Amino acid sequence: MGSGKEVFRRTRKLQASLEDAGEQALLVGNRRNVFYLTGKDAGRIVVTPDESVLFVRPLYRQLYSSLYGRGFPHRVVDFEEGAIKGFLKKEGVRKVCLDSGSAGALADYRKRLGVRVSVSDLVERQRAVKSDFEVDLIKKSCRIAHDAVYFAGCLLKPGKKELDVVADVEAFIRRRGSETPSFDDGMLLASGRRSADIHARPGLFPLLRGPVVVDLGAKIGGYNSDVTRTFGFGRLTAREKEVMDFVRELQQSAADLVRPGAVAGDVHKFAEEELKKAGFMFHHNLGHGVGLDIHELPNLSGKSEDVFKPGMVITVEPGVYLPRHFGVRHEDTFLVTKSKPKNLTA
Amino acid sequence: MGSGKEVFRRTRKLQASLEDAGEQALLVGNRRNVFYLTGKDAGRIVVTPDESVLFVRPLYRQLYSSLYGRGFPHRVVDFEEGAIKGFLKKEGVRKVCLDSGSAGALADYRKRLGVRVSVSDLVERQRAVKSDFEVDLIKKSCRIAHDAVYFAGCLLKPGKKELDVVADVEAFIRRRGSETPSFDDGMLLASGRRSADIHARPGLFPLLRGPVVVDLGAKIGGYNSDVTRTFGFGRLTAREKEVMDFVRELQQSAADLVRPGAVAGDVHKFAEEELKKAGFMFHHNLGHGVGLDIHELPNLSGKSEDVFKPGMVITVEPGVYLPRHFGVRHEDTFLVTKSKPKNLTA
Repeated sequence: MGSGKEVFRRTRKLQASLEDAGEQALLVGNRRNVFYLTGKDAGRIVVTPDESVLFVRPLYRQLYSSLYGRGFPHRVVDFEEGAIKGFLKKEGVRKVCLDSGSAGALADYRKRLGVRVSVSDLVERQRAVKSDFEVDLIKKSCRIAHDAVYFAGCLLKPGKKELDVVADVEAFIRRRGSETPSFDDGMLLASGRRSADIHARPGLFPLLRGPVVVDLGAKIGGYNSDVTRTFGFGRLTAREKEVMDFVRELQQSAADLVRPGAVAGDVHKFAEEELKKAGFMFHHNLGHGVGLDIHELPNLSGKSEDVFKPGMVITVEPGVYLPRHFGVRHEDTFLVTKSKPKNLTA
Repeated sequence: MGSGKEVFRRTRKLQASLEDAGEQALLVGNRRNVFYLTGKDAGRIVVTPDESVLFVRPLYRQLYSSLYGRGFPHRVVDFEEGAIKGFLKKEGVRKVCLDSGSAGALADYRKRLGVRVSVSDLVERQRAVKSDFEVDLIKKSCRIAHDAVYFAGCLLKPGKKELDVVADVEAFIRRRGSETPSFDDGMLLASGRRSADIHARPGLFPLLRGPVVVDLGAKIGGYNSDVTRTFGFGRLTAREKEVMDFVRELQQSAADLVRPGAVAGDVHKFAEEELKKAGFMFHHNLGHGVGLDIHELPNLSGKSEDVFKPGMVITVEPGVYLPRHFGVRHEDTFLVTKSKPKNLTA
């Protein structure tokens, strides 16, 4: 199936939800949402239950028009000053919802559009449940990430610099066809006591003894993957080994709770409780949805009321961080299915 | 000079501007702004004319405390539910400004903080003018970007795939010590008619004849660089050569207008006018500030009223894009000085 049909179906589905929600119009400005609905990430879209208009700069009008045939669900018009306002007026729209990308400029849109505005996560919620087309791309992306993280493990040799390993691993990910090097700031690789720093960035210094945290991903057709392994570098202490085993086992038991109908916040709380019993604090969320964004819905924090559904793709990534000592994290990307979640990076 | 003294000086300068602006407090949530004021990018800061408090998760309290000695300008406290609200109340603050990172959640902060909130770009405007410490880092970053873009030019051989070239160039940038692969989505490399697509991403297909646009950067100590070259691949047409010469010359003449006191919008308009005379449309801004963000103040759009000052670091990057044919862009990173701007990527 080509992506022409796919963006057509996504737009129709969104229009149906818009109608169900009793909304007149949705303004889509987040570039991932625009990509989701068009296959390109330029412009803004106004979706109503009956129509969808893509406003793009003149250069992009030609590019979009030639991209798809009749499968393209949007009317493409030039994005000029006042164009969106004019369209809303012509259609008699008196209230418009903004997506996450537009919501930041809420006050500005309130002035500019001349209609009532509110915020809606309709696109983000639709994106949380993946189609077969999306799952296929995520699987390809996960395969590259899986191979890359083990390649990283093979490159950990005494005297090597962190950034040399990163250079080779990112090049490997690229040569396999990844559209981005992995994450916004590149892959994470932290050795020695720096493994306890969640914000550590690799540098031009030699690898240090102890657990080495390697966190990376790939991107295929716009779709991300996310995997973390903690490798032992040099002789590990009994304590280090014990924590590494503990985190790996906790990830497995937390992932086992990811079933349709389960509440994401409850699974986070289970992991937090297990960590507490073992004497650790949990310093981040258990995981996150993965798709066009590396972090998207569903939310896997302790407060999340998001309910798992088949087709959601998430990470499960417990970690233990002991400042001045070491850190350990174990992460895979999972597809929520009717029964057991499928580990896509195993 | 270590970065302890530097973050101290930056914070004092911000406190002075806050006092000049007659503001009681500034809430800093943008992670680049937090990095600018602390040297790390975790947490939120509340700055008042007399004090500065950094709210971080417990894991980070230890990390920050050990990072600097007495040069650290912030009191570090645990970032717990209601902590910021409690601090504002205790200090008798009735109105707080939010920086760009916090402004997106304006409505939410309005509810949560229990005080009046507004938006301020005080930090962003301070960041637009670089200290010597910052210029040194940007120069290092520019040197890597300069070398990398010419390395890319050397790798353009018939039959090579776009992503193979990207893999080698990004690895080169990493091995030289860059903390990120270049941009959020990695470097841009577009050949053939895809060079006319500003949003083109490199792929697993062979390089095509014609102008090849290569746009990349490095990051050192948090500071970015940005450079674009258009290389001829295979035999160029007379038209292609003519456009390449035109864009290169236009960049030079636009850069010549970047003097202290000049208005950024006027320089953009000059370039737009020159392009129009030659029969082209300008499809993006003439450039942008470069620093901790790849795009920051000053703004070089046609509407910008930002005035150039010595110490600003900007790009000048005119381009011509002819859909279905080819595109050309020429970009360097410049330091605004008292006289002629200094090209840091030449």
